[in-house]
Amino acid sequence: MGRLTGGDPSLLRRINSAVVLHALRTATATAPGAAAPDAASLTDLVRVTGLSRPTVEGVVDGLIAGGLVVEAPAEEGEVRRQGRPARRYRFRAEAGHLLGIEIGAHRVAALLADLDGRLMGSAERPVSPDAEAEERLDRVRSAVTELLRRQGVARGSLRAVGVATPGIIAADGSIRLCTALPGWTGLPLGERLKRSFRCPVLVENDANAAAVAEHWKGAAAGSGDVVFVLAGLSPGAGALIAGRLHRGFGGAAGEIGALHLLGREATPEEVLSTTGEPLHPLDEAQVARVFALARDGDRQAREAVGRFIRRLVHDVAALVLALDPEVVVVGGWASGLDGVLGPLRDELSRYCLRPPQVAQSLLGEAAVAIGALRLALDHVEKELFAVESTVTARR
Amino acid sequence: MGRLTGGDPSLLRRINSAVVLHALRTATATAPGAAAPDAASLTDLVRVTGLSRPTVEGVVDGLIAGGLVVEAPAEEGEVRRQGRPARRYRFRAEAGHLLGIEIGAHRVAALLADLDGRLMGSAERPVSPDAEAEERLDRVRSAVTELLRRQGVARGSLRAVGVATPGIIAADGSIRLCTALPGWTGLPLGERLKRSFRCPVLVENDANAAAVAEHWKGAAAGSGDVVFVLAGLSPGAGALIAGRLHRGFGGAAGEIGALHLLGREATPEEVLSTTGEPLHPLDEAQVARVFALARDGDRQAREAVGRFIRRLVHDVAALVLALDPEVVVVGGWASGLDGVLGPLRDELSRYCLRPPQVAQSLLGEAAVAIGALRLALDHVEKELFAVESTVTARR
Repeated sequence: MGRLTGGDPSLLRRINSAVVLHALRTATATAPGAAAPDAASLTDLVRVTGLSRPTVEGVVDGLIAGGLVVEAPAEEGEVRRQGRPARRYRFRAEAGHLLGIEIGAHRVAALLADLDGRLMGSAERPVSPDAEAEERLDRVRSAVTELLRRQGVARGSLRAVGVATPGIIAADGSIRLCTALPGWTGLPLGERLKRSFRCPVLVENDANAAAVAEHWKGAAAGSGDVVFVLAGLSPGAGALIAGRLHRGFGGAAGEIGALHLLGREATPEEVLSTTGEPLHPLDEAQVARVFALARDGDRQAREAVGRFIRRLVHDVAALVLALDPEVVVVGGWASGLDGVLGPLRDELSRYCLRPPQVAQSLLGEAAVAIGALRLALDHVEKELFAVESTVTARR
Repeated sequence: MGRLTGGDPSLLRRINSAVVLHALRTATATAPGAAAPDAASLTDLVRVTGLSRPTVEGVVDGLIAGGLVVEAPAEEGEVRRQGRPARRYRFRAEAGHLLGIEIGAHRVAALLADLDGRLMGSAERPVSPDAEAEERLDRVRSAVTELLRRQGVARGSLRAVGVATPGIIAADGSIRLCTALPGWTGLPLGERLKRSFRCPVLVENDANAAAVAEHWKGAAAGSGDVVFVLAGLSPGAGALIAGRLHRGFGGAAGEIGALHLLGREATPEEVLSTTGEPLHPLDEAQVARVFALARDGDRQAREAVGRFIRRLVHDVAALVLALDPEVVVVGGWASGLDGVLGPLRDELSRYCLRPPQVAQSLLGEAAVAIGALRLALDHVEKELFAVESTVTARR
């Protein structure tokens, strides 16, 4: 039968608590650019939540005791107008902190935010594409340590850490498969990083995280049906369906890089080669040189770029035909190269029964770490606000 | 803020009613093949739902008044053992009926079921692939009329009608685009069929419906992450993600038939040709002849079949890489042809980072109509059992 609500008073208390906290947090988040965040009175909360005044009072007392809510100082005007101003309360976004971490081929980056997801600072470390796993993890730890120290945030204040990295990620946070980073396949990444934190660590594929980021505050802010393409030599992709990340049954959704192999075509590194020698898979400078040569009219380079774009268009089209998103966001280093977005848009509108919008990433390189941060925020919000849903009994 | 539950007693009544109805229906559905469906006593219902006895009594009285529940006759053994046996109640699956309708290129078919989805009968009409829309709709109406009359079911007893047909279906039940059936594009199919019924009519893409069917009682019964491929000259596909149909933002998800056009490859009708003249898009007999010739060793036919299978494998691989399903079910007429499933399985396990299981449709030709029926059942279950979910406040 699943979970039932009929006779469970503690569940009702939790629902009420979540409702009040959400109302307070919404009031705080929508403060019109004020230095001091907005707050809500008990009367406001009674009106917005539809709960009784005694219920709201009880819930607010509990939230204050838990450190999540604080009484806001009375506003000056109000104090003067009335003899005894209504008490006002606000959500304490500073009651905890979140990290968003990107672990990439060329760099690691960390973002710090409060419980409202407001960015407080960032730190970054370069890393060699050839670096072994331990070296890469060291860079992560050192970036995090620097960031926390610089911002004066205690490690114990962290409530969740989101981590985004290339590869197929298993549900337990280990790397099922990653061809891009040495020593990454099989690494229990979540477990390794958990040793550095006393809070949940959530590991996610990099393209998936970037899709979440562009939906949160980027090129797909208005849409919940999004395909994000991390364009590079071997493209990865992440998809949101109705605002939720689609990971696939085994976490491998969007790994379209293998598609061309079916046609027995050349690898991406061969496709972009102008010499017959394949390019290094992660040598972005070499690829940029080919694109620059093509712009200058070099025949071989133009042919190579043409091949590369056709490949990318084909891979993205496969995703679009399979998923039918509202928006395709193209990010990754190749999205900044001339001549990628235009042909992609043309071809999609030519062959898709219902062509999607095609937009360039607004967050650029930051998308992956911002997405990791959002996933940490999602986790905390779920803890704070979610209640078990009532039974919608089906089959 | 969305919907709140805090202080809404009518919502609580509805939740309790849904919970009791679901418990009764589950008891009925799991009856061990008995001629008379199983029933539950008030004590059973109190135990299973966790609700109080007076609450259950009130709810059951309401359900009896609404015709959805009836007191079951006491079992003989029980009458003898005790002076006054506990009253037992059962869900009245016969309180309403459902239709599942397939409108295809070669035939229309209708299935009739009770509110438990138990099949009562079917009717079918052949139709020419060249038939105009009005003729096709006439066949549907005549099949339905025959079916209802034969089963002695009044039209007014229908609670929902599911309809599955090729093409991209808009949310309002009209056909946005359909290249397979003459006059189908732009047809307000749902609206037209609603005139024949006094209940909701739900229109769905045929491959989507077949995916639902194979999940309900076919080759994907154990999995909620399914890609169903309706294999034909131009393959269509439907996908379930976590047990729910993925339609895409514009209803065009899975329309992978256009994928090969990107590579400027030949059309499917050219691919299978052994003469240089393209085949007729819907001439299945002609295609079967090519496959038969290939089995007999005809060189040109073998090459044509090879091209056809490579195309199909490529299209399915695109779906698999994009969605990462647990199971791929292959149906449609081409799935019965020799040499389709084996190569598909081989190629997928060779190129997919996490290859899915590949299974042949268990429902065959019936899958589309059965899926349409299931969609009607889903609609009725939602009406009967669903309650608004409590607020899970996020962002």
